[in-house]
Amino acid sequence: MGTSRGAAGARRPGGRTARVREKVLEAVGPLLVEYGFDGLTVDAVAARSGVHRATVYRRWRDVGGLLADALDAAGDDGWSPPDTGSLEGDLRALNGEVQEALTEEPSVALAMIAASFRSEEAARSLRRFWEERYDRCVAIVDRAVARGELEPPVEARKLVVSSTSPVYHHRVLLHAAPGPELPAEAARAAVLAARAGAFRSPPGAPSGRRSADQPAAAAGPGT
Amino acid sequence: MGTSRGAAGARRPGGRTARVREKVLEAVGPLLVEYGFDGLTVDAVAARSGVHRATVYRRWRDVGGLLADALDAAGDDGWSPPDTGSLEGDLRALNGEVQEALTEEPSVALAMIAASFRSEEAARSLRRFWEERYDRCVAIVDRAVARGELEPPVEARKLVVSSTSPVYHHRVLLHAAPGPELPAEAARAAVLAARAGAFRSPPGAPSGRRSADQPAAAAGPGT
Repeated sequence: MGTSRGAAGARRPGGRTARVREKVLEAVGPLLVEYGFDGLTVDAVAARSGVHRATVYRRWRDVGGLLADALDAAGDDGWSPPDTGSLEGDLRALNGEVQEALTEEPSVALAMIAASFRSEEAARSLRRFWEERYDRCVAIVDRAVARGELEPPVEARKLVVSSTSPVYHHRVLLHAAPGPELPAEAARAAVLAARAGAFRSPPGAPSGRRSADQPAAAAGPGT
Repeated sequence: MGTSRGAAGARRPGGRTARVREKVLEAVGPLLVEYGFDGLTVDAVAARSGVHRATVYRRWRDVGGLLADALDAAGDDGWSPPDTGSLEGDLRALNGEVQEALTEEPSVALAMIAASFRSEEAARSLRRFWEERYDRCVAIVDRAVARGELEPPVEARKLVVSSTSPVYHHRVLLHAAPGPELPAEAARAAVLAARAGAFRSPPGAPSGRRSADQPAAAAGPGT
């Protein structure tokens, strides 16, 4: 989990390379939420981070490279899904995290999603970021099966996406304020569906885990 | 349903105003999918439609006005949700329409979603478009209740969003290819959840219909 990408060079924790990367990537989110994709330039990142622009150009090349590495760094944070003791509690807490990330002001998450429509490199990195997050969330379903809350086999990823997607849908697609009750309601609906037999894997099917490099839409979302 | 917006002037079906509007709006989608938001300009729309640029500027003002009116016109198409005779069949057919709109090449729907991150006016119009579509979809749930498939009261809009949102999630958020089985699976999960008691309205709560001008997120998604 959490390998840094080539563009940022080999990481030596605590070393100069790591410190430069940290400084540069720390500038990306604030610039993106403050000035939008059009205001996020290599020069602006260099100026804000205090790192020489030649260094930024050499290591990250362009805004796509900066966004991709910022997303890779964000995915490298040791995050693990909530563990509340019940399937519904875990999904509710996860949805709460999603809702908070999408509604806080400013929302780096929302700005990254918007950027993914401008840069194919950012779109690829966002997809990788999410694939990995959903892979980690398989633990929620594994624990539920171990507790006897669900009967295996269950397509874990589909169950978790079923729970989270209404929250994203309201905020990102409908551009509407998700109600405070939405995280809990969407989690409950997913649990009820799962208990009633949705998300059953067909016999012999692989688990819900997906490889990050599994083929996806050929066309990126670019402009 | 389907009132045109002031920006486009009063519509007289078959009149000159209506023909000009039709020509102008017909140019918006193709330019958007071909050149992206940055290539969609008032001048380009004027050139492609053959309508004088002064007319386009006067009536639509800018790209935001053009996108908003194109979305209003798209919402004015007399669309009604599928009516297959069963709740699951209706939701499956609806998801199939969504998936097709999002995966066809080029996808005007996907381009409009991308544009909604660039223009607050487009974001507002897209929200209005979707609110109205979901309002029409309440009929799916009303019919299911009338057939005895669901026990009332049901929050119709939440049920329908629960069914459609995984399809949008894969294509638009995850930038991943939705599998061909997704429309049916997401519909089935929503039906199972509904039958198990999800989406129950609290007593005395209003129906699933939402007014298009119900307050939503204060901040648009702008750049």
